[in-house]
Amino acid sequence: MRPQDIITKKRDGKRLSEEEISFFIKGVTDGSWADYQTTALIMAMFLNELDSEEQSYITQAMLNSGDVLDFSDIDKPKADKHSTGGVGDKTSLIIAPLAASCGIAVPMISGRSLGHTGGTLDKLESIKGFNVNLSTAEFKRIVKECGYAMAGQTADIAPADKKIYALRDATATVSTVPLIVASIMSKKLAEGLDALVLDVKTGNGAFMSEFENAKRLAEAMVETGNSFGVKTQALITDMNQPLGKYVGNAHEVFECVKVLRNEIDDQMKPMLEVALELASRMLLLSHVSESTAQAKELLVEKIESGEALEKFRKNLVMQGGTPEICDEPGSLLDRNLFKLRIESKRDGFVSKIETTKIGKAISYIGGGRLKAGDSIDHSVGYACEAKLGDEIRRGEALGMLFCRDKNQADSISEKLRSAYRIADIKPRKKDLIKDVI
Amino acid sequence: MRPQDIITKKRDGKRLSEEEISFFIKGVTDGSWADYQTTALIMAMFLNELDSEEQSYITQAMLNSGDVLDFSDIDKPKADKHSTGGVGDKTSLIIAPLAASCGIAVPMISGRSLGHTGGTLDKLESIKGFNVNLSTAEFKRIVKECGYAMAGQTADIAPADKKIYALRDATATVSTVPLIVASIMSKKLAEGLDALVLDVKTGNGAFMSEFENAKRLAEAMVETGNSFGVKTQALITDMNQPLGKYVGNAHEVFECVKVLRNEIDDQMKPMLEVALELASRMLLLSHVSESTAQAKELLVEKIESGEALEKFRKNLVMQGGTPEICDEPGSLLDRNLFKLRIESKRDGFVSKIETTKIGKAISYIGGGRLKAGDSIDHSVGYACEAKLGDEIRRGEALGMLFCRDKNQADSISEKLRSAYRIADIKPRKKDLIKDVI
Repeated sequence: MRPQDIITKKRDGKRLSEEEISFFIKGVTDGSWADYQTTALIMAMFLNELDSEEQSYITQAMLNSGDVLDFSDIDKPKADKHSTGGVGDKTSLIIAPLAASCGIAVPMISGRSLGHTGGTLDKLESIKGFNVNLSTAEFKRIVKECGYAMAGQTADIAPADKKIYALRDATATVSTVPLIVASIMSKKLAEGLDALVLDVKTGNGAFMSEFENAKRLAEAMVETGNSFGVKTQALITDMNQPLGKYVGNAHEVFECVKVLRNEIDDQMKPMLEVALELASRMLLLSHVSESTAQAKELLVEKIESGEALEKFRKNLVMQGGTPEICDEPGSLLDRNLFKLRIESKRDGFVSKIETTKIGKAISYIGGGRLKAGDSIDHSVGYACEAKLGDEIRRGEALGMLFCRDKNQADSISEKLRSAYRIADIKPRKKDLIKDVI
Repeated sequence: MRPQDIITKKRDGKRLSEEEISFFIKGVTDGSWADYQTTALIMAMFLNELDSEEQSYITQAMLNSGDVLDFSDIDKPKADKHSTGGVGDKTSLIIAPLAASCGIAVPMISGRSLGHTGGTLDKLESIKGFNVNLSTAEFKRIVKECGYAMAGQTADIAPADKKIYALRDATATVSTVPLIVASIMSKKLAEGLDALVLDVKTGNGAFMSEFENAKRLAEAMVETGNSFGVKTQALITDMNQPLGKYVGNAHEVFECVKVLRNEIDDQMKPMLEVALELASRMLLLSHVSESTAQAKELLVEKIESGEALEKFRKNLVMQGGTPEICDEPGSLLDRNLFKLRIESKRDGFVSKIETTKIGKAISYIGGGRLKAGDSIDHSVGYACEAKLGDEIRRGEALGMLFCRDKNQADSISEKLRSAYRIADIKPRKKDLIKDVI
């Protein structure tokens, strides 16, 4: 077998066998395939697609390229959730302690901000001292003792994915369902899970803005997860506005601590709703609850009783973060930031929010990474005061920008303001949860 | 502009602008595009194609990546021919001295054997001392003084093509019309020609086995050549059997010297016919003759008078080859080779010859390169005794193999024999020249 032969087959739209896909992924991992051969095949896969069997083969091969975590010594159901990424999407930070406080072990391997979207690891690093670079042994110990741990992908987990993802990023071959599925699922399956809940975002702030594409991605991931013996469900959720109140790393952690403290602003409620929906399905798939209604009741109880907050505190202690933020969430926020009210220029109803524009604006001032390797300013952020459908008057705040100085504020204020469309008629309310796969 | 943006456009089937294609080719030449980005774009170009304007832009950009020869001090029409490659395809060796002896300057930059096909440079190197590695200055001097020169592509001629071709070879993206056109034409246009005649092979021994594909390639090359101000014509010629009598480097040079000496076996006649057809069009496009009939008459006269042979001799002297082969062509052949008659197993007519099989068999024993970098044994070869349509009896020779020893002969004799199909009915004769574009 030669790389050229495999490339020729996929170039000509033929099906690759399990052996051929395994030869490819082994070649990527051991370097016997040149990067320029890998990207030629990936472009052919992008344009000629993979069927569901090939999808399964490549996921398996990428999973096999590294270690699979073994949690057989933890006598609890193991479950995780994964989101395809959005703006203000911070549910992981409350789902993990919530699920853990209901008796589920949550080994959560997360990613970083890229483009207009945030990343859980960057959010966690806005907590002073918090360490996301855990060895496999540390990671397992924390999952065992605390109920959940949150860390980055180690070199031992799906190394083929790491290499292929970097090449896809440099060759405009990221946004294709089969390769997205293989990339996400090879990492998630390496967590040794019993159950997995996927949050597939759709709308103008999602990678898959079209509902049909999001659905296709959700179906492919659910099919793949189940075929590997992991009970998998996907929710398709709305990303036509930032999720919850804040965008920006420290601000998002602040919002989560406020929710865990049961101090919940109106703007935070949609975020909590999505989090409860996702977490309830983790409970359901793990047989902790018998219905989503029962599960949600239990989850709300864990917030009201403070148990979820105590889980969060325990994790902070074990991962090196400052547990004081649980008592004083305001300590997360830099009080010396320059503030700018983004005001509406007319009366009306918020009828559209260009979510990607907001995400990119915040990334632009350091809240995220426009390209891999950019450094992050954890303090800057944005509070969404007006949400879709809200009535607003001229001069009232659409949002509040927190940044370093006036220059920074000037550089993006018009971008932020122009992300909002104000109409005369109140728009129809859109469902937050659009589908369950 | 970033490589990703260009890749995205072509990935999505959009047209690239002149500026974008020039950015790509510059990036390949100066290394600012990574090879893995180049191959991703090339695969997207392969699958989503290039239109005729993009075709022209990429040819121009590849041409601009290096030097263009300047023959303005030679007061003769400059013309060349190029073949897309086949088995036993040796016409360059007689076309160059023929055209030169008719007053045309022929600056012929040629290639090497790859796969089942031969290469002019390898054939020339079977002549003791012949030097194909000429500097631009030497090349020009020989064209000027002798009327023709034959050399390999220098680093100064279309360097982007050299790099891209190597990457295409390793990523199964060779066989696509726009990139073939750009590769061939960027080199040919660098020769500073007034006229160009293309020999596009079709049939089971050609890269473009289907006539329609060959025609598409021919049309694209002719369009490109003319758009650059070079009078260009293409012949589509038959490659359903080796062209002429011999396959193998020294044997092919032997055949050409025999033809130039006007000692022409029946099996050599089709080769001469194609050569005259091509050369006559060089004369026509260069206004040396007024019709192909008149041109062919002149060319035949140059053979019969010995003038073409004397041109060939003069070139040998100037490029370091042994001129004695003109008087003793047999001295080209190694008399100590092991000979094996490939015999027909039944009576009938030769109805099919799998030409690629014959080319590959001879490459296998060293007559060509199965992969780039393989070394060549110039002496081994094959004489095609029976041609398509010939009547043959059981035990008569289909061909004669000349190789190193019995082991070598055994390794390919069955392959050679099985390349022939013998039928009861005489097949319809196929045209040697299938179309003129």
